[in-house]
Amino acid sequence: MAVGEYPFPTMHPVKGVKLTAVSAGIKKVGRRDVVLFELAEGSCVAGVFTKNAFCAAPVTLCRAHLAHTAAIRYLVINSGNANACTGEQGLLDAKATCSAIAEITGVQPEQVLPFSTGVIGEPLPVAKIIAVIPEAISNATELGWDDAAAGIMTTDTRPKGFSAQFEHQGHVITVNGISKGAGMIKPNMATMLGYIATDAKVSPALLQQLSREAADRSFNRITIDGDTSTNDSCILIATGGSGVVEVTDAGDELYQKLREVILAAHIHLAKSIVSDGEGATKFVTVAVSGGANRDECLDVAYAVAHSPLIKTALFASDPNWGRIVAAIGYAGLNDLDATKVVVHLNDVLIVEKGGRASTYTEAQGQAVMSQAEIAINIDLGRGSFAETVWTTDLSYEYVRINADYRS
Amino acid sequence: MAVGEYPFPTMHPVKGVKLTAVSAGIKKVGRRDVVLFELAEGSCVAGVFTKNAFCAAPVTLCRAHLAHTAAIRYLVINSGNANACTGEQGLLDAKATCSAIAEITGVQPEQVLPFSTGVIGEPLPVAKIIAVIPEAISNATELGWDDAAAGIMTTDTRPKGFSAQFEHQGHVITVNGISKGAGMIKPNMATMLGYIATDAKVSPALLQQLSREAADRSFNRITIDGDTSTNDSCILIATGGSGVVEVTDAGDELYQKLREVILAAHIHLAKSIVSDGEGATKFVTVAVSGGANRDECLDVAYAVAHSPLIKTALFASDPNWGRIVAAIGYAGLNDLDATKVVVHLNDVLIVEKGGRASTYTEAQGQAVMSQAEIAINIDLGRGSFAETVWTTDLSYEYVRINADYRS
Repeated sequence: MAVGEYPFPTMHPVKGVKLTAVSAGIKKVGRRDVVLFELAEGSCVAGVFTKNAFCAAPVTLCRAHLAHTAAIRYLVINSGNANACTGEQGLLDAKATCSAIAEITGVQPEQVLPFSTGVIGEPLPVAKIIAVIPEAISNATELGWDDAAAGIMTTDTRPKGFSAQFEHQGHVITVNGISKGAGMIKPNMATMLGYIATDAKVSPALLQQLSREAADRSFNRITIDGDTSTNDSCILIATGGSGVVEVTDAGDELYQKLREVILAAHIHLAKSIVSDGEGATKFVTVAVSGGANRDECLDVAYAVAHSPLIKTALFASDPNWGRIVAAIGYAGLNDLDATKVVVHLNDVLIVEKGGRASTYTEAQGQAVMSQAEIAINIDLGRGSFAETVWTTDLSYEYVRINADYRS
Repeated sequence: MAVGEYPFPTMHPVKGVKLTAVSAGIKKVGRRDVVLFELAEGSCVAGVFTKNAFCAAPVTLCRAHLAHTAAIRYLVINSGNANACTGEQGLLDAKATCSAIAEITGVQPEQVLPFSTGVIGEPLPVAKIIAVIPEAISNATELGWDDAAAGIMTTDTRPKGFSAQFEHQGHVITVNGISKGAGMIKPNMATMLGYIATDAKVSPALLQQLSREAADRSFNRITIDGDTSTNDSCILIATGGSGVVEVTDAGDELYQKLREVILAAHIHLAKSIVSDGEGATKFVTVAVSGGANRDECLDVAYAVAHSPLIKTALFASDPNWGRIVAAIGYAGLNDLDATKVVVHLNDVLIVEKGGRASTYTEAQGQAVMSQAEIAINIDLGRGSFAETVWTTDLSYEYVRINADYRS
């Protein structure tokens, strides 16, 4: 099941990025389950990774390699096996994959980043992956984005992509992205991966700053059920292939333009994941404003977004405002003055002055809740900070998928 | 639906407590929906209340009255309406109920504690409640526990009670308790109420300390879905009617005995609520040990207990250990060494050394998960602190009840 329209776009080439998907038979024979990115020399890579203490072996290795160099030349991603909770052997397997690519191409093993998504706790079939590396290297092409987007899918019902171009001083700059994840609801299917690439040139420090900012405003603001996985990774690549000068300062005009498009890419890819959330019948935006700081806006937004009571009410298209109010109330804010909180469903005022708005009618609420896309807008009335998260409802289908998943 | 055996016990009288349930027709004609406790002069009362910022009017008033005096003489509880999110009028209505009792009985209004449970945001039908107060006062009897336990129910499928006696220096001391709540899953049906009474005599400061400790170890350790309501209240009454001397010191031998039984009462009543959780098919104990402090034990326990992925796996009787490991990993502990974490399902070792235990077989896990009562035992391997929470699975029935609730 999926909600809303997120058609896969026509992907422009990104100069300096070649990619492909080949079949290693990890879980299903014939499925293209190994994706390779080849990045031109001079490319710079940054990344943000799961905070899960049980992070998977490839995440450990990605962190180590990026600490060593931003001059990454290859990314290799397998679906069908997460290489998580696989102990020392898992780390050796991930290293072996990097070494196989390094040997063939002559780069250092630290210039290869490995990623895995799939079942937790099963040994990685590393020989199968290594066997298809030569084919992947020879197949990689600037036109491989569609295949790569499909190759990283697990339980996703559709591939997720973003592509946009803008001009700067006579240069055309491209920003592409692909992501996978059907709602961060399957820690043992590995969850969320995102790859965003541009042919602009960005200094390593600035690229890492932008990767962190963009991930925080996108992949870190979506939630289906609060579960985060052992394998979540979000990578930002700048190849410099467009020929523009390197941006090294956040004050640059080019950086401002680039940042805007890269933020849009991240947000689009993150929202695509929510819209493909398992069992999702509603796409829900929870926007909290009027907070004294960002953290408390997020506390309230997540309390609402994670509440099973609110999520079941959304599934039932029931404008059950009491549940929203209760969740705001238990979000743990110090000295929250309930009488200053204002809640709208889309633009319908439902709560003010500590209770139901006098103008509110059940028919108004019902009209909003019947829609597939719903915004819960909460003004805390105590400051100028705001945060937004995106989530889904909680349906029978969610329980069915997650109860039946291993059977 | 309810899981496990929690038969309603034979309730001994508690000297100094008279109670009854009468019918005010708040929601259904003929249902006994107003409960009155009359406490003998000299009784002492303590309480613990919801931290929800949108706390209901009666909670505000209870807090104010208990700040004024512990010499409470009456408790009045209505089901069918929560008197929450009702603004200034809600407070006036709760005060009017207290005043009505005070006028008839000659006590101060501050010696009355009001409680409400039911729908949020509807005006309290205060005239109906006041009309039945004289009948309630004349009906109150030491034998009214069963009626009171039934009278405070809302969506509960069964009344919840505890009764025990012990001897101290020739005196028989009784501890009784009743509670309501079908899983803290209905903020707009008001959620959890608990009333525990003894005929021992305890100083106000010590009673408040005991109430806080007992609530923390019981009602604050149960969770169905993480939602906490606007009306949660837990009251501890000591009448002194047994004739024993007042305990004023936590070192007293009598206090130690009493504390043990009162803790047992709270835990039994809290577990009764979990076992009656809406849609529950499993009763789940999450026991975390080896923590560096209590807070981190609780962080891990709640991450596991709130994970919809784990809860759906429990519903499916699926020993999906990867989901448990992932939840431990994202609980937010600093520098958690995943290789030191040990997880058992009941007494079956499933995770050690950062991965699946070599001795573990799916058949062992399946055998545990097929049972109605399951313990998830987690040793963090980094300290000596431990905490336990109790929860349920997440079933189709949960979604159905909460999606259909207002229709």
